[in-house]
Amino acid sequence: MLPSGFKANGINAKIKASNKLDLALVFSEKPAKAAALFTSNQIKAAHIKVCQEHFRKSRTFSALVVNSGNANSFTGERGVGDAEAVTSFLAKELHLNQQDVLIASTGVIGKRLAVEKIKAALPLLIKGLSKSGLITAARAMMTTDTFPKIASKKIQIAGKEVVLCGIAKGAGMIAPNLATMLCFILTDAKISQQALREALASAIEKSFNCITVDGCMSTNDTCLILANAAAANPLIETGSRYFVQFTQALAGICLELAKMIVKDAEGATKFIMIKVRHARNFKEAKNAAMAVANSNLFKTAVYGENPNLGRIVAAVGAQGIKVKEKNFKIKMGALKNKLINLTLDLKRGKAEAVVYTSDLTPQYVKINASYN
Amino acid sequence: MLPSGFKANGINAKIKASNKLDLALVFSEKPAKAAALFTSNQIKAAHIKVCQEHFRKSRTFSALVVNSGNANSFTGERGVGDAEAVTSFLAKELHLNQQDVLIASTGVIGKRLAVEKIKAALPLLIKGLSKSGLITAARAMMTTDTFPKIASKKIQIAGKEVVLCGIAKGAGMIAPNLATMLCFILTDAKISQQALREALASAIEKSFNCITVDGCMSTNDTCLILANAAAANPLIETGSRYFVQFTQALAGICLELAKMIVKDAEGATKFIMIKVRHARNFKEAKNAAMAVANSNLFKTAVYGENPNLGRIVAAVGAQGIKVKEKNFKIKMGALKNKLINLTLDLKRGKAEAVVYTSDLTPQYVKINASYN
Repeated sequence: MLPSGFKANGINAKIKASNKLDLALVFSEKPAKAAALFTSNQIKAAHIKVCQEHFRKSRTFSALVVNSGNANSFTGERGVGDAEAVTSFLAKELHLNQQDVLIASTGVIGKRLAVEKIKAALPLLIKGLSKSGLITAARAMMTTDTFPKIASKKIQIAGKEVVLCGIAKGAGMIAPNLATMLCFILTDAKISQQALREALASAIEKSFNCITVDGCMSTNDTCLILANAAAANPLIETGSRYFVQFTQALAGICLELAKMIVKDAEGATKFIMIKVRHARNFKEAKNAAMAVANSNLFKTAVYGENPNLGRIVAAVGAQGIKVKEKNFKIKMGALKNKLINLTLDLKRGKAEAVVYTSDLTPQYVKINASYN
Repeated sequence: MLPSGFKANGINAKIKASNKLDLALVFSEKPAKAAALFTSNQIKAAHIKVCQEHFRKSRTFSALVVNSGNANSFTGERGVGDAEAVTSFLAKELHLNQQDVLIASTGVIGKRLAVEKIKAALPLLIKGLSKSGLITAARAMMTTDTFPKIASKKIQIAGKEVVLCGIAKGAGMIAPNLATMLCFILTDAKISQQALREALASAIEKSFNCITVDGCMSTNDTCLILANAAAANPLIETGSRYFVQFTQALAGICLELAKMIVKDAEGATKFIMIKVRHARNFKEAKNAAMAVANSNLFKTAVYGENPNLGRIVAAVGAQGIKVKEKNFKIKMGALKNKLINLTLDLKRGKAEAVVYTSDLTPQYVKINASYN
């Protein structure tokens, strides 16, 4: 499943109190180009500061280490030092420069990272790197997730097979922008730096930026792509036919992973697709859809299979969108189903947007009342 | 408890399926000046359109009829016609002009009002008007509220006793601006129209506009004050000492009622006071406090008595306030208590704001999963 030249692994490093996997490693045999988008939260996790610094210093990357069980966020300078200690140790073990190693963390905010436990686990994690290790890597990123999230696609670029493969974690604290989660996409495509960056931004716009579980933005959001050129295809550059092909495949993977996150939303019993039609522009359509998707009253009504359309109206109206009451049309699928389709027609223009969300359940409250 | 010249009553008009009170009437023997603030939701309930029309046509008002069990919202032109049918019938029964009668509704959105049931109940409701009827009126406005919300104050204006008395309803769909609820304040003060309007706006700013239960803005928000001048005090005008006295008393009542709404929040087990200190200005302080108050993750953590400070940090950071991580100080009271004090220090300036909210519980979800 991994693209050529990549290996991965996951391990239990005792960062979590449980015996679950909590440390993942992705390794590229050839140095890979990278592009990334991070949370727009003003408070950013230590790993984001470290990644941004490494992006400034290096143009290619060979390893990515990810821990769950601790977000290493709101941990100040010491948190950054802890993350650097991990990348430094890992770089030595792999005979790399420190700036060629990337890092990400997810879990509880505000606690120091267990650096010594991670260092102790890294040699075994490296030893176990394999072509079939992606599933354990995906599992090792999970927090409240109930299943690992993996998607992949193959495309043909001038007769060469190019593979894209993504893993993601996320189930709560999910809101744009960026949808709150970790997502790592690996590809063996040969692609220019600019094309990689543009393809990622475009793919995220209608996938991770169009999902919400609880409207709560994380401090750790990270979506990163590594491209190691092992497929030996002709270089993909912006504006080309290959670029369109690559971007479509990438967007497909991102949307698949984004939907998995919503399907795995904490305590959720329903998967809700909200389409807003005939808005003045995409932003307005998305705002209206997001307002409904983030309304606790709408989400509890769906949980109760209670067709309370008034709450949809109130949520859209609260956004200040000048929709006329008589023009506002709502179409909602059967609430008994697991998959609920909701379509809102604003009769104001030609734009539309689709947003994915989940219901709000007593189980969501219970999970988050005791999470630590 | 009612100020001079006012009578009130509440009755079961069978608008609700239960046998609970659902129709309230307030009557002023002398025509009263009025000021009001309505929801800023783009979708406004029929009663708001009718009240705004009556405010255009008339300068004084003698009666206010309020129903619970039906919001008469998202009901289009027919909804406005239904509300007018009620005010028209009531005006005839009380020998008033239709524009001197005000109306308000609360309950489920999107259903036609039971006008015939209301008409049938009005004669008995009028017959029962009394000086001691405020509590039944307050009860008749309740939806998911578990207790009626009443507050009153007496002040001396140049030797004359002036009484202010307010009733409110609200427990869910509570968010600024205006905090989602109905609130009616009655006073026998003699006050100029401008002073009345300014006093109300000022009182609301730091009371109803500083509470949130679920961040969901209603279509029916109404805060109305009636002043019938029966106390025969010297006219209260803006800028005077009397105006300051009156506004303080009014602000006191509004804050008391606002806190009652939060205490009665659907399914809540905790009352949370969030103070943000040393913000650059009041708006920034309030934004930061509201961001935390509306964070489902913060609210579930409080429910679980789980001191997850990271969720507070993430919520404030998501607002884009440029607080520095090292300056951001959090002080939280014991989570075992019913009353939780949370203080955030941003070290950015001198402004502060206080916001009141509740926790998010499985019971909130259950109430709203089945409410109709």
